[in-house]
Amino acid sequence: MELTPDWVVGFVDGEGCFHVSLQKHPEMTVGYQVLPEFVVVQHERDMPVLYALKRFFRCGVVRRNHGDRYAFRIRKLEDLKRVCEFFTTHPLKTKKNVDFQKFRRVLHLMGEKRHLEREGLVQIIDIAMTMNTASRPMLEKIRRELEVG
Amino acid sequence: MELTPDWVVGFVDGEGCFHVSLQKHPEMTVGYQVLPEFVVVQHERDMPVLYALKRFFRCGVVRRNHGDRYAFRIRKLEDLKRVCEFFTTHPLKTKKNVDFQKFRRVLHLMGEKRHLEREGLVQIIDIAMTMNTASRPMLEKIRRELEVG
Repeated sequence: MELTPDWVVGFVDGEGCFHVSLQKHPEMTVGYQVLPEFVVVQHERDMPVLYALKRFFRCGVVRRNHGDRYAFRIRKLEDLKRVCEFFTTHPLKTKKNVDFQKFRRVLHLMGEKRHLEREGLVQIIDIAMTMNTASRPMLEKIRRELEVG
Repeated sequence: MELTPDWVVGFVDGEGCFHVSLQKHPEMTVGYQVLPEFVVVQHERDMPVLYALKRFFRCGVVRRNHGDRYAFRIRKLEDLKRVCEFFTTHPLKTKKNVDFQKFRRVLHLMGEKRHLEREGLVQIIDIAMTMNTASRPMLEKIRRELEVG
């Protein structure tokens, strides 16, 4: 299966997700690691499309997500930068583009090592909390912790 | 917003739905009307994309679906035939293409007026019941009715 840039943009407009999460990491000064990722989840019957996306972006992994759902996932910073270049030259057409811009901003802050200090991390959390639609109680909790600490 | 054919295929691979339902219609010999439709549902924030699809296909309507969700919907048989031509020359890449083939088969049967007689209607119901993933208790009920009747 050969994908074209426009098909990829349309499919990601529908099914893609730009996501930023935090993970406890005692060895880091701020105590948390920032984990940005680009994910596309599909039912297992559409695994061929996930592998086609992996070939298209020349990076990422396809893994089982939950039950009969599989995810194509890009997590490496270097690879995510290339994903950002792609969606900058081939803009998403839905409001997902707003999430993408925020995602790119987080990657930029990480490129400047801002996530390694408290102030930068709070800034990243503030961006992440306005991304996607679900509420992020965990991020809010960590943010309060960082404000107090 | 200008859409390209490939973007439309990618977006419909993710968000589109080919659906066949039945509605009671006492004036028809078989008692039921077949209602095929092509639908794309989005949150109201992405209404511009629905209107762009309407312009792209040069037919259909955009209406509120439920709550904050809006639907772009094509129901006219003549318009659906053009939609079928588009997705025949620009094939979907996910398993949604299987649903599309079934949808096209139903439209073909309707073109041959098979939905106006009991046997053809049962055939259409059998196809519709294997489309999409949700179970269709209403179609099963009507099918049993037609078998008995």
